[in-house]
Amino acid sequence: MMKIAIDAMGGDHAPESVVKGALQAVQEMNSLEITLVGDEEKIKPFLKEHERIRVIHTDEVITNEDEPVRAVRRKKNASLVLMAQEVKEKRADACISAGNTGALMSAGLFIVGRIKGIDRPALSPTLPTTDGRGFLLLDVGANVDARPQHLVQYGLMGSIYAEKVRGISKPRVGLLNVGTEEKKGNELSKKSFELLEASPVHFIGNVEARDLLEGKADVVVCDGFSGNIALKSIEGTALSMFSMLKESFMKNWKSKLAAGLMKSELKQLKSQLDYSEYGGAGLFGLAAPVIKAHGSSNDRAIYNAIQQACRIVDEQVVSVIEETVKTLHSEEE
Amino acid sequence: MMKIAIDAMGGDHAPESVVKGALQAVQEMNSLEITLVGDEEKIKPFLKEHERIRVIHTDEVITNEDEPVRAVRRKKNASLVLMAQEVKEKRADACISAGNTGALMSAGLFIVGRIKGIDRPALSPTLPTTDGRGFLLLDVGANVDARPQHLVQYGLMGSIYAEKVRGISKPRVGLLNVGTEEKKGNELSKKSFELLEASPVHFIGNVEARDLLEGKADVVVCDGFSGNIALKSIEGTALSMFSMLKESFMKNWKSKLAAGLMKSELKQLKSQLDYSEYGGAGLFGLAAPVIKAHGSSNDRAIYNAIQQACRIVDEQVVSVIEETVKTLHSEEE
Repeated sequence: MMKIAIDAMGGDHAPESVVKGALQAVQEMNSLEITLVGDEEKIKPFLKEHERIRVIHTDEVITNEDEPVRAVRRKKNASLVLMAQEVKEKRADACISAGNTGALMSAGLFIVGRIKGIDRPALSPTLPTTDGRGFLLLDVGANVDARPQHLVQYGLMGSIYAEKVRGISKPRVGLLNVGTEEKKGNELSKKSFELLEASPVHFIGNVEARDLLEGKADVVVCDGFSGNIALKSIEGTALSMFSMLKESFMKNWKSKLAAGLMKSELKQLKSQLDYSEYGGAGLFGLAAPVIKAHGSSNDRAIYNAIQQACRIVDEQVVSVIEETVKTLHSEEE
Repeated sequence: MMKIAIDAMGGDHAPESVVKGALQAVQEMNSLEITLVGDEEKIKPFLKEHERIRVIHTDEVITNEDEPVRAVRRKKNASLVLMAQEVKEKRADACISAGNTGALMSAGLFIVGRIKGIDRPALSPTLPTTDGRGFLLLDVGANVDARPQHLVQYGLMGSIYAEKVRGISKPRVGLLNVGTEEKKGNELSKKSFELLEASPVHFIGNVEARDLLEGKADVVVCDGFSGNIALKSIEGTALSMFSMLKESFMKNWKSKLAAGLMKSELKQLKSQLDYSEYGGAGLFGLAAPVIKAHGSSNDRAIYNAIQQACRIVDEQVVSVIEETVKTLHSEEE
């Protein structure tokens, strides 16, 4: 039986979207048990009785305004903290929250703990590409002052995830950089390039931010600062363009007519760019799968994140990472 | 008389777009003289005789494939190098190239030289915002291993440019960061935050990449690596979305009809996102205005870059920067 713990209070549409996504998941997956952690009174209205969903009640919540590290330390009964405890104490195989990203990273690090041999966990979303394959970007902010060896570990973990969970054989690993030529970049990227070339990943060299959505690589590694800038630039540009497009379509009767004619195509375009289809962002490098679902997750996005967590557990991604790192370290010795 | 030197061979549509842009500029500005540097045989077909355009002939060219620093050193007669010499020897007030960015930065640094007191020049494009005001982003790649004091200098130079050339009074300066809260970011951004707060610029705090196009700040400072990632992520996302949108419009007869109805709105949307309307990217911190026009510049973009160069010269941006830095340094002593 697969067991997933979910922070029912995390995200803009919690607990409704979380509960609905969980219900959908248990209905479709027979071997799945879900533990929802949060305010029972708020969860109940959306929860149909289900033998494979149980609720751990707590009324303490970490909000987006809370300072992450302090919140995790002080709010010992917060839904996010209790969720992480479920994993730590092996009552759950994996956990998911759409709440405060920093708090989830802290809870992951301090409660769930790291895989031995991985220095820093990496926050790793899968972003859309125009060809529909998507690519994994890591790190997008767990570790903003990364060192070259961290990026190599990201490459390893990302490759394992891409292969096991996304079914990509021999995933192409690229290094996010300011140019495609070998000697490009800052000190970090130059040194990382060398280490990646010598590593066992299928390294294809530098990738420019301009080419990310074109799917030049299956896994793109970078420090958490640059990765966050890339992720949010892409997100922000897409959102701004959609709102500008919407305005254009509302301008006059001709454009409104056009909007009507284009309805299904526009919907499709939007879903092409909706990265919740690929699940949430994994926190790779932790001793159990921890998934950050997008703050704006609807029930569909939560459902996708649950599916993703199940695949990570099924494919034993964590222990494969652990074994791979162990082998590498023993080779180095 | 204003004198501008232009690399006639730089850019994807050179020399045609360069020559045509130059012609348009001299026709509209009576006090403007332009020196085109490049292959006379290739320039001539597009050049109508004009008393205020002269040509310096050379058949040496730096291409995008050339390694920048080496190319500037070895190709002593390259159009880009001779253009920079015109500025150095005061035969031109400013210069413009749409060619190899790295080579232009090298030529700027080694031939034109820095302003005393500015440690590193910054490549500074103005990007579009949804409200049409635009914002200045610097640095986007001149200095990929920046230090906190560099970012303060960028803030100063950017403020002066925004005020003098773009007519924005008391420009809002933001620091590109992974969150809006004060203590966010990597070592560089935390230290830069402190220095910017203590500096004379109108510092409004951290700006997330997600909000860049929403115009939260008039000037956004960052290290050249992150800035390059932000710029190219925005560019790449916009291009990918336009091509996806184009595909959507070509799908069937209904969508094609919609495309026809939306023609002028789509054109307007595209021009809203076309940042060549704001001119090229200035290389701020050099002893004379050096402008990098986009590689894909058409004649309109070249014309805009010429106008921009003229305004920078007219408003004496370089000497204002020089004076400001001098005053600051003497205050520090």
